[in-house]
Amino acid sequence: MEERTLFTKIIAGEVPADIVYDDNDYCAFRDIHPASPVHVLIVPKRVIPKITDAGPEDKEILGGLLLTAAKVARQLGVDESGFRCVINCGKDGGQEVPHLHLHLLGGRLLGWPPG
Amino acid sequence: MEERTLFTKIIAGEVPADIVYDDNDYCAFRDIHPASPVHVLIVPKRVIPKITDAGPEDKEILGGLLLTAAKVARQLGVDESGFRCVINCGKDGGQEVPHLHLHLLGGRLLGWPPG
Repeated sequence: MEERTLFTKIIAGEVPADIVYDDNDYCAFRDIHPASPVHVLIVPKRVIPKITDAGPEDKEILGGLLLTAAKVARQLGVDESGFRCVINCGKDGGQEVPHLHLHLLGGRLLGWPPG
Repeated sequence: MEERTLFTKIIAGEVPADIVYDDNDYCAFRDIHPASPVHVLIVPKRVIPKITDAGPEDKEILGGLLLTAAKVARQLGVDESGFRCVINCGKDGGQEVPHLHLHLLGGRLLGWPPG
């Protein structure tokens, strides 16, 4: 099995984080190096290292991840002003933790290109 | 109902596009203003204007969208080197077409912040 990642430890309460949302399947907390006024990581509790590791059996958890992003955007008040969802995969994507997660960024006008 | 978007017209074959993937539920084509060597838009054929418009009934189509991104990344040869998935919502997110879509960017090291 995978080594336990930082996110697994945050989910387990072993590493502190500013958690803004938590349910059976997902945990969301503020990025410690925010790139925008609202910058939250949304993490499925089931560990999928990278999006390319996901299979058909993960379809529901992946769909729920995007629905949870919309829910957290509403909760944090950026659903009307707008926001960006980013999932990094591998080296060129800039993925730093091998535990699939979604960056939700809002609270300012996000520029283009996205990195 | 929604006005027919540019993407609906591309999916219907009424507007030309460099289509790289097509199945019953999704269509993927190259962005006409690429921000990276690989820059593809992946569009669910069912129109959801914004991610905040999605409901529980859209969970499967949203999960399939992320699985399709991984599949297209494999097809275009960026699954090992890495890539970034971006979904913009509303004004601050920079969403330009009111038809939910995912930007897949790869072929170079993507920077941070993502816009």
